[in-house]
Amino acid sequence: MGFRLISNCRSEPIVGEDRQDIEALIDLMARLPGLGPRSARRAVLHLIKKRGRLMSPLATQMQLVADTARECITCGNIGTGDLCGICASEKRAIGEICVVEDVSDLWAMERAGGFKGRYHVLGGTLSALDAVGPEDLRIPALIQRVMDEQVHEVILALNATVDGQTTAHYISDELAGRCAVTSLAQGVPIGGELDYLDDGTISAALKARKSV
Amino acid sequence: MGFRLISNCRSEPIVGEDRQDIEALIDLMARLPGLGPRSARRAVLHLIKKRGRLMSPLATQMQLVADTARECITCGNIGTGDLCGICASEKRAIGEICVVEDVSDLWAMERAGGFKGRYHVLGGTLSALDAVGPEDLRIPALIQRVMDEQVHEVILALNATVDGQTTAHYISDELAGRCAVTSLAQGVPIGGELDYLDDGTISAALKARKSV
Repeated sequence: MGFRLISNCRSEPIVGEDRQDIEALIDLMARLPGLGPRSARRAVLHLIKKRGRLMSPLATQMQLVADTARECITCGNIGTGDLCGICASEKRAIGEICVVEDVSDLWAMERAGGFKGRYHVLGGTLSALDAVGPEDLRIPALIQRVMDEQVHEVILALNATVDGQTTAHYISDELAGRCAVTSLAQGVPIGGELDYLDDGTISAALKARKSV
Repeated sequence: MGFRLISNCRSEPIVGEDRQDIEALIDLMARLPGLGPRSARRAVLHLIKKRGRLMSPLATQMQLVADTARECITCGNIGTGDLCGICASEKRAIGEICVVEDVSDLWAMERAGGFKGRYHVLGGTLSALDAVGPEDLRIPALIQRVMDEQVHEVILALNATVDGQTTAHYISDELAGRCAVTSLAQGVPIGGELDYLDDGTISAALKARKSV
């Protein structure tokens, strides 16, 4: 029919006749983080207008990554082989492991540069509320790695949230006596203005003050 | 190398070794409206985590739409054949044409329902600043349609912007004497509160007041 008297912006089909394919694409796009039904429609319309230069290459590239991407069996990072590029690289130091919650945190660490060791992606944080225990994360694998590889330092690069810090405490307890455990410094961010910082950050930075 | 001392969040590769494919996908995703480099990374990471259930179907569907979608030769709407579903439908009235700027506006009109005629997508608005003249839009084709088809009413559903209203005036001048030309009513939106409305809308609603 193509007509409805009562409409809402969520699940309404655009035009009934020949739009099932476009509708299905919009529904799939709307499941991406940061895109709702409205912005998914806008994105799909933009794609259709540029279907030669953008849409086809994007579909091809997406299929390629879907077919090749996989988790590294050692660290949980995403790569194209059994071992990710970092674990397979001979240039990365073996003795240092940087522990992160998620692959996006690993990417952020790599963008910042400066860390020359290897990573371990936990895949989340401990959470009593969501019933996430150590076995649900890659914590046993981390402890195994620390014992198997000659690891002398584990750097905890976990988010400064309650769950992140709980996880950091748990891991440092588990690794106590096996290797050095450090965590990222807390303090004033580079370029940060005191007036815009929260009280907790200023207190932490004051406690961790250092001589100049 | 995988390391850079100076980094910014724009064009920085994530990890040098085996990430060219993922990088290329992020670059393509970042060209969608509403997605920047940061949200494109987040979306791609989400896709990779759900590569079986979401990423592959999305890539397939995107390729399908890229291969089949095309502009209707009559009205400029997007469909899968020479004629779009609305122009090809025998259920839509022939005598009424609703003129919209863009396909997204056509979709909005269809979601609202209630219009049983056909559409004409201009593909933009007249703009002196951007040097967009009537020949750059589908305005000559609209005038031709009004003459060829038995059109008795053209409904201008153009945006209430300066360019949109300029275009509406131009079209109504061109069509004067050939058919009735109407435009969408302006006034208080449904559910709107006077206190939050701009002065122009309230003035327009007052001028167009009607007896109850």
